[in-house]
Amino acid sequence: MLNTLIVGASGYAGAELTAYLNRHPHMNITALAVSAQSADAGKLLSDLHPQLKGIVDLPLQPLTDVAKAAQGIDVVFLATAHEVSHDIAPAFLAAGCVVFDLSGAFRVQDAGFYSQYYGFAHQHGALLEQAVYGLAEWQSDKIKQAQLIAVPGCYPTAAQLALKPLIEKQLLNLDQWPVINATSGVSGAGRKASMTTSFCEVSLQPYGIFTHRHQPEIAAHLGVPVIFTPHLGNFPRGILETITCRLKAGVTAQDVAAAYHAAYDDKPLVRLYDQGVPALKAVVGLPFCDIGFAVQGEHLIAVAVEDNLLKGAAAQAVQCLNIRFGFPETQSLL
Amino acid sequence: MLNTLIVGASGYAGAELTAYLNRHPHMNITALAVSAQSADAGKLLSDLHPQLKGIVDLPLQPLTDVAKAAQGIDVVFLATAHEVSHDIAPAFLAAGCVVFDLSGAFRVQDAGFYSQYYGFAHQHGALLEQAVYGLAEWQSDKIKQAQLIAVPGCYPTAAQLALKPLIEKQLLNLDQWPVINATSGVSGAGRKASMTTSFCEVSLQPYGIFTHRHQPEIAAHLGVPVIFTPHLGNFPRGILETITCRLKAGVTAQDVAAAYHAAYDDKPLVRLYDQGVPALKAVVGLPFCDIGFAVQGEHLIAVAVEDNLLKGAAAQAVQCLNIRFGFPETQSLL
Amino acid sequence: MLNTLIVGASGYAGAELTAYLNRHPHMNITALAVSAQSADAGKLLSDLHPQLKGIVDLPLQPLTDVAKAAQGIDVVFLATAHEVSHDIAPAFLAAGCVVFDLSGAFRVQDAGFYSQYYGFAHQHGALLEQAVYGLAEWQSDKIKQAQLIAVPGCYPTAAQLALKPLIEKQLLNLDQWPVINATSGVSGAGRKASMTTSFCEVSLQPYGIFTHRHQPEIAAHLGVPVIFTPHLGNFPRGILETITCRLKAGVTAQDVAAAYHAAYDDKPLVRLYDQGVPALKAVVGLPFCDIGFAVQGEHLIAVAVEDNLLKGAAAQAVQCLNIRFGFPETQSLL
Amino acid sequence: MLNTLIVGASGYAGAELTAYLNRHPHMNITALAVSAQSADAGKLLSDLHPQLKGIVDLPLQPLTDVAKAAQGIDVVFLATAHEVSHDIAPAFLAAGCVVFDLSGAFRVQDAGFYSQYYGFAHQHGALLEQAVYGLAEWQSDKIKQAQLIAVPGCYPTAAQLALKPLIEKQLLNLDQWPVINATSGVSGAGRKASMTTSFCEVSLQPYGIFTHRHQPEIAAHLGVPVIFTPHLGNFPRGILETITCRLKAGVTAQDVAAAYHAAYDDKPLVRLYDQGVPALKAVVGLPFCDIGFAVQGEHLIAVAVEDNLLKGAAAQAVQCLNIRFGFPETQSLL
Repeated sequence: MLNTLIVGASGYAGAELTAYLNRHPHMNITALAVSAQSADAGKLLSDLHPQLKGIVDLPLQPLTDVAKAAQGIDVVFLATAHEVSHDIAPAFLAAGCVVFDLSGAFRVQDAGFYSQYYGFAHQHGALLEQAVYGLAEWQSDKIKQAQLIAVPGCYPTAAQLALKPLIEKQLLNLDQWPVINATSGVSGAGRKASMTTSFCEVSLQPYGIFTHRHQPEIAAHLGVPVIFTPHLGNFPRGILETITCRLKAGVTAQDVAAAYHAAYDDKPLVRLYDQGVPALKAVVGLPFCDIGFAVQGEHLIAVAVEDNLLKGAAAQAVQCLNIRFGFPETQSLL
Repeated sequence: MLNTLIVGASGYAGAELTAYLNRHPHMNITALAVSAQSADAGKLLSDLHPQLKGIVDLPLQPLTDVAKAAQGIDVVFLATAHEVSHDIAPAFLAAGCVVFDLSGAFRVQDAGFYSQYYGFAHQHGALLEQAVYGLAEWQSDKIKQAQLIAVPGCYPTAAQLALKPLIEKQLLNLDQWPVINATSGVSGAGRKASMTTSFCEVSLQPYGIFTHRHQPEIAAHLGVPVIFTPHLGNFPRGILETITCRLKAGVTAQDVAAAYHAAYDDKPLVRLYDQGVPALKAVVGLPFCDIGFAVQGEHLIAVAVEDNLLKGAAAQAVQCLNIRFGFPETQSLL
Repeated sequence: MLNTLIVGASGYAGAELTAYLNRHPHMNITALAVSAQSADAGKLLSDLHPQLKGIVDLPLQPLTDVAKAAQGIDVVFLATAHEVSHDIAPAFLAAGCVVFDLSGAFRVQDAGFYSQYYGFAHQHGALLEQAVYGLAEWQSDKIKQAQLIAVPGCYPTAAQLALKPLIEKQLLNLDQWPVINATSGVSGAGRKASMTTSFCEVSLQPYGIFTHRHQPEIAAHLGVPVIFTPHLGNFPRGILETITCRLKAGVTAQDVAAAYHAAYDDKPLVRLYDQGVPALKAVVGLPFCDIGFAVQGEHLIAVAVEDNLLKGAAAQAVQCLNIRFGFPETQSLL
Repeated sequence: MLNTLIVGASGYAGAELTAYLNRHPHMNITALAVSAQSADAGKLLSDLHPQLKGIVDLPLQPLTDVAKAAQGIDVVFLATAHEVSHDIAPAFLAAGCVVFDLSGAFRVQDAGFYSQYYGFAHQHGALLEQAVYGLAEWQSDKIKQAQLIAVPGCYPTAAQLALKPLIEKQLLNLDQWPVINATSGVSGAGRKASMTTSFCEVSLQPYGIFTHRHQPEIAAHLGVPVIFTPHLGNFPRGILETITCRLKAGVTAQDVAAAYHAAYDDKPLVRLYDQGVPALKAVVGLPFCDIGFAVQGEHLIAVAVEDNLLKGAAAQAVQCLNIRFGFPETQSLL
């Protein structure tokens, strides 16, 4: 049994993560924590997330002393704001914990990225280099050795899972940048009061055009430029990405299918569609990323869906945990 | 042409009201105002409500000096918080304006009601006595003479329109209190950021059981006790009320129908269903209250629907305006 | 391992049931069946319910010969239309199978009930008498002995779980009939094309006022008259019931709480709220019925929520299975 | 006063059209018609669309004899299936009626298009040539002379309004085809029972990838190839299109803005955003198409929104009517 601490359990991804870990046979949830200033400190997790009543009624403890909180802890999950992860991860690492960070604090090995897209100067360059990007299907060898796993963002997970096989097999004509149109459920904005996510205000709408921080995360890890346009959708959970690409001359639908099957046939959390493309509902509440595509001439449209809180956050974190410690990859996820 | 000032135009009801008055042939919108502290001061109404872009692009002016704001104004609409209406209505009245108050500040002629249900001590007892309750179908004679019209709450409008004909005709056995189950769209909570109305938090749920301020408003104006249970629904607009009553022995469905037809056949904004009961969608975006019912033995179930922002607020305010000044009752509403 | 056949797996409740049984350590799904005429015959379950892709990819076999289908089967689940269950249950019972029927075909021991409310004359009076009503929290002793378990309807489950403790403890003044206002998600109407459940047509609306077949089911099993008013809600899953009752003089909130705790403290799938009342979201996707209440004077309002497809159908069927065969009561449900 | 007949008034666009024409000061609705086989024949329009109760209670008459139906009619609106419009338009034209066809039957002057995309062989080549494509902002001179106006499809209207100014001004590098990602509300699928539009089945999903009939309609009228990917959204009304284009080297955001302003500053039903891009809610229930854009380097993303039933159907039909007969362009639309 590994002792685990979950910081930021009060959020939507944190609650999902806690539910997964609560039923994990090798994990012992030692405590749930929230930032010391949080108005949720002292409440039960199930006060905030009533679906967990009777399942996880642990209190949310204020995190006041990281070094103390790390004592006796084997594994820490940070479902916290980017700056918070940035600030507290080092002490957990120093204490010997394995850290799974669901924030963006350690995802891109370019400190300038943080100034530009996250609004803070990154202080831990060595950790940035040491961190392993937890795109589970592609990084399992590195994850097995890692102490700090930067779990990918919700949008980048689906985008990379759809594009990486094509890029690896050099099927794309990159003179035309892949166009990623993505629509996310409102839970992607986090659990907080705001006008933007107020019930009567939500309406399908693009946002962050050309400026969203997930664009460079995707481009950096794929190694190719992309156009990424996120949209806020009028549903609570899930992400659907429609990706339009140019194939190299002569590349066929069979080539595309072969690339996907080679990449994912032995991966339990990616489901490939041999016909048609997935709908959002196929994955809501489930840890999968589903991928389908269509080809016409040199044009390829790939569609990837995932639950932004699961394969886009909590489930991928647990998948990384399972890989890291040699548990079955889908343990407690299905 | 009457010069009109709309205070609180930034809210959902305020925006609907502004749209109605903007197309009213006898009204000239002199200004839109918000409270001086509002973060919306200085913005255009259409910045907040993009559907009004190009239709009403007036700025929201901070209301700093009521006496000054009242100069040259014939008619004032207060779509403001209860305490704000309470505080500013007197100065508008003193300046000779006709005031239509969409808040609860002047609805019940019992000052103790305000301490108990609104959390403030009412300071203007004389105005409370003078105020006319603007339930338009039942109060037109008084409205024609009024300087201060307290437009009814959203829940009370539908409840009273459904129950009043039955009570007036003495069809109900009141040993059993009418049970009013009401479900409202989220816009009823107003335009503001809050966890309660956050997109991912909204879910069908009762609230304010036995304690909602609209219970005594309904009971006071009907003159009978009622059980009123409001629910938050997962839709933006509209109210549906399902009202279960006991009929006096011998009262028939025909008697009930006759009571409704006598009350409303000449009322353009109440639509009666001779068969079946209305669905919420019948009235969303429209100024009507629709009523249907079913009888079995001594049991009556009446169903009333309205758009909470329209017949439950803005449309009824304009209906009262039309009655007050002798315009056609549905002017600019249909 | 028990061999099981699921008839009607193509529907919403059937798919949930299949997912539960698929992960049940003591159950072996031998086959999935649909009626011989079904357009879904021959498809994979995951073709209809893409969330099950890779989890349950079994084909839906046309049920042409019940006796043959029953061979080697220990347990049959009927998630079929009422008439279909009525027609095929006898052969499965004759073959020695234990039958869990999720339809209404064997719920009420009054053959006249079927003519009036279900539109067919019941042919199997002896089975009606033999059938055990599977309200799991109240019928476990009988379920343990039963060969035919009639799993309760979705609305009746929540209504009875909320009312039965109060009636058993004689806390209610039944001169006033309990008023049950219930709102169900659209999945309650089943998986089929119809105008009523067409996306653009759905809107909060009462239906079946005074005439819904679940009213007599509730009344028969509680032994008291009730007023039951179902509503179609604009959400896919879940039921919320707001129940207004009259308490006997002198009965207190403490008495009500005590009755609930006595009934359910040892029941894992009923969660009681000591403060406040539940929201629908607390139970969607989960096998619980959550209950809360408020008292004012002689008036009681109880609120019960459940997922109509789970505690209102599939989960309760599995709960009955677990009780029947001595498995842990929540096996595969949590 | 022009006498008008509306065929297909029972559908969602037909009902909106009827409401507009009902309040149009120069139009007299002589009759509403549906196809002779329709199950709705004989019902009132307000039986199907309860929001119209008391506003338009006209009966839906079966259209059995077109020549007879055309007698005394000045203007006919066809809100009918494509084949129906194809079959009945000639007789109305022969009778001298001005015909506004909301179907696809006369939109593309290439008879082969109909075999490939609509599944029928077009029989009326002369009418195809004579028909004027009713993209109102761009075709007003032709519309003024036309007897047969083919009102554009919902997706093509928004796409063309966003792209045409850029193409006319030759701002685009068309080596890269414009990528149009579009999401439509469910009402776009029409008013009928189907599994696809069943409430519990709807979920954000692309469909018709590379094969949707609106792709060639857009491409034909723009004169450039496009990639068009429609999606079904989980909302009843509205279309949002996110269009990704390559600009010619040196083209700036100012050039784009200038092109839009030159095209639309005098057009009352296109609203341009100088900052940001529109959300769907800006146009639902309104006759506008709203357009905004962003530029980064050579990449342009334009966003267009409209109500698919209004600017995408009924409102544009009335706008064409107003242009055709010299009424104010927004008569009865605002």
